Amino acid sequence: MACVPEPRYNADGLVPVVAQDARDGRVLMLAWMDAEAYRRTLATRQATYWSRSRQVYWVKGETSGHRQRVREVRLDCDSDAVLLRVDQVGPACHTGAPTCFEAQPAVWSDLAAGSAEGGGQASQTAAPAVTAPAEANQPAASAQPLGHAQEA
Amino acid sequence: MACVPEPRYNADGLVPVVAQDARDGRVLMLAWMDAEAYRRTLATRQATYWSRSRQVYWVKGETSGHRQRVREVRLDCDSDAVLLRVDQVGPACHTGAPTCFEAQPAVWSDLAAGSAEGGGQASQTAAPAVTAPAEANQPAASAQPLGHAQEA
Repeated sequence: MACVPEPRYNADGLVPVVAQDARDGRVLMLAWMDAEAYRRTLATRQATYWSRSRQVYWVKGETSGHRQRVREVRLDCDSDAVLLRVDQVGPACHTGAPTCFEAQPAVWSDLAAGSAEGGGQASQTAAPAVTAPAEANQPAASAQPLGHAQEA
Repeated sequence: MACVPEPRYNADGLVPVVAQDARDGRVLMLAWMDAEAYRRTLATRQATYWSRSRQVYWVKGETSGHRQRVREVRLDCDSDAVLLRVDQVGPACHTGAPTCFEAQPAVWSDLAAGSAEGGGQASQTAAPAVTAPAEANQPAASAQPLGHAQEA
């Protein structure tokens, strides 16, 4: 039987993993896997990562219930990055934000305020020149000077 | 003037960057920036990376013309990953694939064959049990045993 395609792990034995919502395309988070986490992810269809800070395997949502049911696993052109397309249960971020990239305002944006187009992150931005009206069902943009990071 | 939010760089002075198509949500690639590449990206609105293999700054598309006009820059919850939402000109991958995650078939998938839903990657998969008919304008799925990697 042919081997399952494996990532090329870095010097620490890790590969970066992008988790994307399979339904709406939002980028949920970037985390890390080692070979064992990758194997467990494929075997269980539940996204399983290696926590560099806690030095443990971490099934996403095992505590919070905010699991990621894996729908697709892809490697990039040189196999040193993984894309997981998942069904995300609840918020992806431990902060409660829908995605880890919505936990703070954008550094910069010229997209329409709160734009969710193209799998976008429908949260506040710090964009300096936002003129488009807030879209329906999106949080109102708070126009702030570039670079003023806010706690979500 | 407040400082522009900065990523937390790793021990090599680098931060992983996910580039996503701002229009359709496809994840295009994962690459790396150092502080200077990040600064240039913000200043020029053209995605600029640090090539670890060639040890040079690399404006995406400077040779191929397949540029990434930056529409939004976001940091994740602990600022150790960057999300760039971009307008991608042409294919994102040096292989000619639309995205770097479409340069080879999926490792595994249970999404509809060639599904582009949710910002998905509309290319061949190696999914073992694909039963849905091929969607219009998508390449036909080639049903293959799990793990048999193919050159795109």
